[in-house]
Amino acid sequence: MINKFVMPEVIFGNGSISQVGECCVRLGAKKVLIVCDPAIVNEEWLDIILKSCTDVKIDYFVFSELTVNPKDYEVEEGKKQYLYHECDSVIGLGGGSAIDVAKAIALIATNKGEIHLYEGIDKINIPLPPQIMIPTTAGSGSEVSQFSIIIDSIKKKKMTIVSKSLIPDIAIIDPQTLSSKEPQLTASTGVDVLTHAIEAYVSVAATPLTDVQAKNAISLVAKYLRPSVASRLNIEAKSQMAIASLQAGLAFSNAILGAVHAMSHAVGGRFPFAHGEVNAVLLPYIMEFNLIACPEKFATVAQLLGEDIIGLSSMQAGKKGIEHVKNLLIDIGVPRRLSEMGLVEEYIKDMSLVALEDACMITNPREITLQDVEALFRQAL
Amino acid sequence: MINKFVMPEVIFGNGSISQVGECCVRLGAKKVLIVCDPAIVNEEWLDIILKSCTDVKIDYFVFSELTVNPKDYEVEEGKKQYLYHECDSVIGLGGGSAIDVAKAIALIATNKGEIHLYEGIDKINIPLPPQIMIPTTAGSGSEVSQFSIIIDSIKKKKMTIVSKSLIPDIAIIDPQTLSSKEPQLTASTGVDVLTHAIEAYVSVAATPLTDVQAKNAISLVAKYLRPSVASRLNIEAKSQMAIASLQAGLAFSNAILGAVHAMSHAVGGRFPFAHGEVNAVLLPYIMEFNLIACPEKFATVAQLLGEDIIGLSSMQAGKKGIEHVKNLLIDIGVPRRLSEMGLVEEYIKDMSLVALEDACMITNPREITLQDVEALFRQAL
Repeated sequence: MINKFVMPEVIFGNGSISQVGECCVRLGAKKVLIVCDPAIVNEEWLDIILKSCTDVKIDYFVFSELTVNPKDYEVEEGKKQYLYHECDSVIGLGGGSAIDVAKAIALIATNKGEIHLYEGIDKINIPLPPQIMIPTTAGSGSEVSQFSIIIDSIKKKKMTIVSKSLIPDIAIIDPQTLSSKEPQLTASTGVDVLTHAIEAYVSVAATPLTDVQAKNAISLVAKYLRPSVASRLNIEAKSQMAIASLQAGLAFSNAILGAVHAMSHAVGGRFPFAHGEVNAVLLPYIMEFNLIACPEKFATVAQLLGEDIIGLSSMQAGKKGIEHVKNLLIDIGVPRRLSEMGLVEEYIKDMSLVALEDACMITNPREITLQDVEALFRQAL
Repeated sequence: MINKFVMPEVIFGNGSISQVGECCVRLGAKKVLIVCDPAIVNEEWLDIILKSCTDVKIDYFVFSELTVNPKDYEVEEGKKQYLYHECDSVIGLGGGSAIDVAKAIALIATNKGEIHLYEGIDKINIPLPPQIMIPTTAGSGSEVSQFSIIIDSIKKKKMTIVSKSLIPDIAIIDPQTLSSKEPQLTASTGVDVLTHAIEAYVSVAATPLTDVQAKNAISLVAKYLRPSVASRLNIEAKSQMAIASLQAGLAFSNAILGAVHAMSHAVGGRFPFAHGEVNAVLLPYIMEFNLIACPEKFATVAQLLGEDIIGLSSMQAGKKGIEHVKNLLIDIGVPRRLSEMGLVEEYIKDMSLVALEDACMITNPREITLQDVEALFRQAL
C-alpha cells in the first residue's frame, strides 16, 4: 500500500504567537484577514497578534462573525470581507470552528463558487492564499489537518471538505493560549483529541507514520487531560495537551477518522452541541462496537492509556481500555448521554442516514449498517 | 522555548517510485534534472522513474557524475547541466550523497554564486526549484531534512548547509529499492539511522515533536537492523528500516545532531570513508562521553533498544544502552576502529580543529573542548 503523509510547518512554544507577523512577511502577505471566535476578541492573544503584524507593517482586517459549528453563510460573508478589504492571506485564530472557517474562506477566495462545491475529497484545483492557523484550544487539530467541516444550512448537515490544499502553510501553537479556557471547554476539546487519536489509530487507512503520532497522543491524553482540566495554571499539562492535539491532528489528517466522527458530524449539523461533548458520549459505545475489528490495536490502546495488560487476551485488554476511557470521561465531567444535551429519539433515523454518508465512515474499522448506526445512537441516548 | 518542525510531503510504500511522474506534474515541472549515483544507473529503479516521467510527458536529463562524499565541483557541474538542458526541477535518486548533491544543485540553480556561499545556517534567500527526493538506502534521512553536506575540495572539509529551503517538496520512499543493496551498505547506512536518532534525541535542541520521531526510530533500528542486514529478501525489515530512516531524518532535521556527526564530517571531508562506518566507530565513545549530560535520556535509549532497566539508576541503565549499541555494531559487522579504515594519528589534530567548528557540534549535550575531541579520536583510532 502507498501512503501519503503531509503536514504544515509547525511553530510551537510559549510566546510563539508573537512570531505571527514575521510568518506573514515570510509568506509574502501584505494584508491579512484574521478570522477569529467572537470570544477571542476580548482576550489578550488577539492584541499580541495585531501588534506582531503592525510591527512588521502587515495590514489586517478582523472578521469574527462566527458561531459554534460554523455555517456556509458565515464562510460566504467572510469571503466578501476578504475581497472587500483586498486581503491576500488568512489567519485563523481560535478553536476548530474559527480555523475551519478561515480555511474555507481561503478556499473560496481563490476557487470559484460556493463552499458546497468542494464537499468531499480532493475537489480543489486552484492554490489557496497563504494560511496561518493559531489554535487556542487543544482539540480540533484543524491547524495541521487537511479537513474543514462547515454546516450546509439548508440541508442542516456538516459538509466534510478534505484536500491537501487545506493544510495551512504554518501552524503556530502557543500553549499559553489554553490557559484562558474554562474547564468544561478544556474537557470537551481534550476528548476530541482522544477521539482523533483512537479513531486514526484503528482506521483502515492508518500507516506506521500515523500510528506513531496517534499512539503518542493517546499516552499524553491519559497522563495530562485530567490535570489540564483541573487547573488553568498547570502550564505543563496544557503544553502536553497541545502536543497531543497536534499529534492527533497529524494522525487523523493522514489516516482519516471513523464512526464517532461520522455520527458526531450528523448530530452537529442539526444541533448546536459542542463537538467534543458529542464525541465523548459516542466514543465508548463505538469502541465496543469496533473492538472485534482489531482487538490487538484496542489492546495497545489500553496499554497506552496506562493499563496493565500482561496475561490478558487482546479482547480482554481491549475491554479494559474501554473501561479506562469511560472512567476518564467521568473524571473530567463531560456529559454521558445525548439526551442530557437535549437530543430526542425522533431525530435518530434521519441522523443515522446522514452519518452513514459521512466521509469519515469509510475508514471505520468495522463495517457498519444503518441499523447499527441507529442502535448505537439509541445506546448513547 | 519556541520550536519549529518542518517536513516535506512524504509518499511511502512498495511501488511508490512509479508515482514520480505525477508528482512532477503536480509541482508544475516540465523538464527535470535527475541526479543519481552512478551505481543506480544500472538498477531497475531508474528505468521505472524514467518511464513514469515519460508517461506524463515530463522531459528529463540524467546526471550521475558523483562520488561518495560529494564535492563542490560536482555540484557546479550539475548546475551547468541543469542550465544547459533548461531544466526547471530536480529529482535526487540514491543514497545521501546523490540527494545532497541534488539539493545543492537546486540551491545554486536559482541562488547566485558558488555553493560555498551558503555554508552555515539560513543563508538562502531565493526559493529553490521544485525538488523530489527518492532515497535508495535507509540511512541519510536527507530526503526529509534541511541539510546538505558537500565537500569543499580546496579546504578538504565538509560544508554543512542548513536551510528550510533545502527541505524537498516531496520525498518518495519505496522500501523495495533497499533490496538491491549489499549487506555492508545496509549495515553502515543503518548505523547512520541509529546515530541520527540518538544524537537528535540527546541534542540540546530536541523538542517533544522530535523526541517522538527519534524514540520510535531507535526502537525500529533495535528490532529490524539485524534482520535487514541478514537478508535482501526480508522486505518487512527493509520497510521498517525505511520508516526508521525517515523518522530519524525528521528528528535530526529539526533537532540537529552532535559530536558524532561533527567528528564524522571532519573525517569524511578528508578521506573517502563511508559516512555510516565512521559514525559506527565513533558512536559508542561519544555516547560514553555524553552520558553525564543527560543520564535519564540515555536510560530511555537503553529501554528503547529493548534493555530491561528496572531497578537500575539512570547511569547504570545508560551504560547498558551503550553496551547494547556496541553489541549491535559487532552483530552487523561494521568496522570497530578508524585505523581499520586507514586513518593514522597524524591527522587527528587537524581533524579535531575542523570538527570543533562543525555546525553539528553546537547541539551536542555535553560541552566539548579541543582536547576532548582529540582524546575521543584517539580512543576510536
